[in-house]
Amino acid sequence: MTNKQIIFKQRPSGYPDENTWKLQTSVLPELAEGELLIQQHYISLDPAMRGWMNDSKSYIPPVEINAVMRSGSIGIVIKNNGNPKFEIGDIVTSWGGVQQYVITKGEGWYKVDTDLKNMPKHIGMFGMPGMTAYFGILEVGKIKKGDIVLISGAAGAVGSIVGQIAKIKGCKVIGIAGSDEKCNYLTYDLGFDAAINYKTENIYTALKKKCPEGIDVFFDNVGGKILDAALSKLRMHARVVLCGAISQYNNKAKIQGPSNYLSLLVTRSTMQGMVVMDYTKRFGEAGKQMGEWLKEGKLQSKEAIFNGIENFQDTYERLFTGDKKGKLILKVIE
Amino acid sequence: MTNKQIIFKQRPSGYPDENTWKLQTSVLPELAEGELLIQQHYISLDPAMRGWMNDSKSYIPPVEINAVMRSGSIGIVIKNNGNPKFEIGDIVTSWGGVQQYVITKGEGWYKVDTDLKNMPKHIGMFGMPGMTAYFGILEVGKIKKGDIVLISGAAGAVGSIVGQIAKIKGCKVIGIAGSDEKCNYLTYDLGFDAAINYKTENIYTALKKKCPEGIDVFFDNVGGKILDAALSKLRMHARVVLCGAISQYNNKAKIQGPSNYLSLLVTRSTMQGMVVMDYTKRFGEAGKQMGEWLKEGKLQSKEAIFNGIENFQDTYERLFTGDKKGKLILKVIE
Repeated sequence: MTNKQIIFKQRPSGYPDENTWKLQTSVLPELAEGELLIQQHYISLDPAMRGWMNDSKSYIPPVEINAVMRSGSIGIVIKNNGNPKFEIGDIVTSWGGVQQYVITKGEGWYKVDTDLKNMPKHIGMFGMPGMTAYFGILEVGKIKKGDIVLISGAAGAVGSIVGQIAKIKGCKVIGIAGSDEKCNYLTYDLGFDAAINYKTENIYTALKKKCPEGIDVFFDNVGGKILDAALSKLRMHARVVLCGAISQYNNKAKIQGPSNYLSLLVTRSTMQGMVVMDYTKRFGEAGKQMGEWLKEGKLQSKEAIFNGIENFQDTYERLFTGDKKGKLILKVIE
Repeated sequence: MTNKQIIFKQRPSGYPDENTWKLQTSVLPELAEGELLIQQHYISLDPAMRGWMNDSKSYIPPVEINAVMRSGSIGIVIKNNGNPKFEIGDIVTSWGGVQQYVITKGEGWYKVDTDLKNMPKHIGMFGMPGMTAYFGILEVGKIKKGDIVLISGAAGAVGSIVGQIAKIKGCKVIGIAGSDEKCNYLTYDLGFDAAINYKTENIYTALKKKCPEGIDVFFDNVGGKILDAALSKLRMHARVVLCGAISQYNNKAKIQGPSNYLSLLVTRSTMQGMVVMDYTKRFGEAGKQMGEWLKEGKLQSKEAIFNGIENFQDTYERLFTGDKKGKLILKVIE
């Protein structure tokens, strides 16, 4: 049996290119005592991957050169050489990386109660993006009924769930996205109160029109000019949730800092960073609540699934071009 | 009797100049029923004054053109035409503005328990700067024993008190100031653990050396490059208290935003703005505590007192050149 893997070869400056990764095929070794063979079905592609490639201090160590590219994943246990914690046929998830098979003793893997059909949803709504949305908007954003909530990257895996949770909690929700199609998805499908297409609208004018009262919470996935515009609209005691800065991840020069940051002072507001790993112990609680909302029809998600580990780089680029709708996922099983 | 007043004539772009203000002399009118005549002794000069000159949304309305320049002040009631709340001889404080006399019904003025000699301390340690320091470091900075606290503008009216309170609370305190003399004042007179002269030292190298473990709290009066450097040294769950941005107040171009702001995300830290007016109801509590520390010799303050309302502009400029030691005060009584 052979395994196809995406190996991280060279740290990119700016956008990754053909020298960043290499597709490698190798023969799978035999399982040692206590090991499992996991056949991976889906790989999660997330903007955070760009940060993991930099050799700088962050919330987790960078991916090492010549290691398998890090990613979240979901798959099935297909062989078990005496590991008592798992059974053949278990659907399992972890940081499996961009590869077709994983041999492991099971550390860091956990079983999920789902079926083949719903596997992609499990690395979206019930995976890192959903957990980030849930804890980000509730614990850091501290939303309450009547709050005006602005979200950047609103049609993405995290943003789309943030907005739906804010609607469930009785907030007015405005989403910022990069196409009319995405904006329609936000307002018609997800029930957002308004949406702004930042590629065709002047963001300051649009904010003035669509949230004239200002904003209580800004959930930021994007950074750059959009963060600056949002800061200019803060109400008193507003909360800015820093979840990401996708507009800045591929900068070769310095990151653009928010020149309107003193608005935090004027409005006595808070800007706070969040990393979903801090809430690992509460993932069960969040999954249960989101599962209920899903059943009640209050929450929906969209997955953008592409095929083939050979297409990893092309698919990855869609994170930054925005050319996808919903949670970006790569199917690696052949 | 005549009154000399500094009248705000023109909103400055960048640094105020000779067209910004005009010294005006006028004859004081008779007191109407219920009015007081207050002879002002000392005017408080604060970096915040620069912000009040801009015609933009802030925490208080801008100073109006042709109005007396806004400032904190302390003085004595010298005439009273039937106002039951005050007596001749009362020492009183308020936003008296840059003028020698004020006629008022007493709204917004309050009596302070001090004497002539200690009047300047009352618009420093027990006035806005002291209150800002007290609530900023305790309520927003949330310091606890063992925290590593970095302060910019550390030899100034606010910063010097912030650092002393942090020492009282058992923190390690590092101050950033603009001369060796000020740095010596911080470490020898005020007991700071270390000081950095940002004009002669590389701030990144100095931080590496003087707080190698990173920082738990950054109390920022300065903004710009120093804020960026501090952000690069945050420990997990750190707090950045935004009190001011004196390096940016006279910018003609856009304010320099902190390009290292994503450090807040990596370290799950919080950057929060504060405005001292929000704590007005608790000024008594803070004054009592600081008075005790003063008596116990744990807290000291320095006032830099200059003379003559004619010298207002020259004195004001010292806020930004840094050419003063301690709380900047103008004596306006002749």
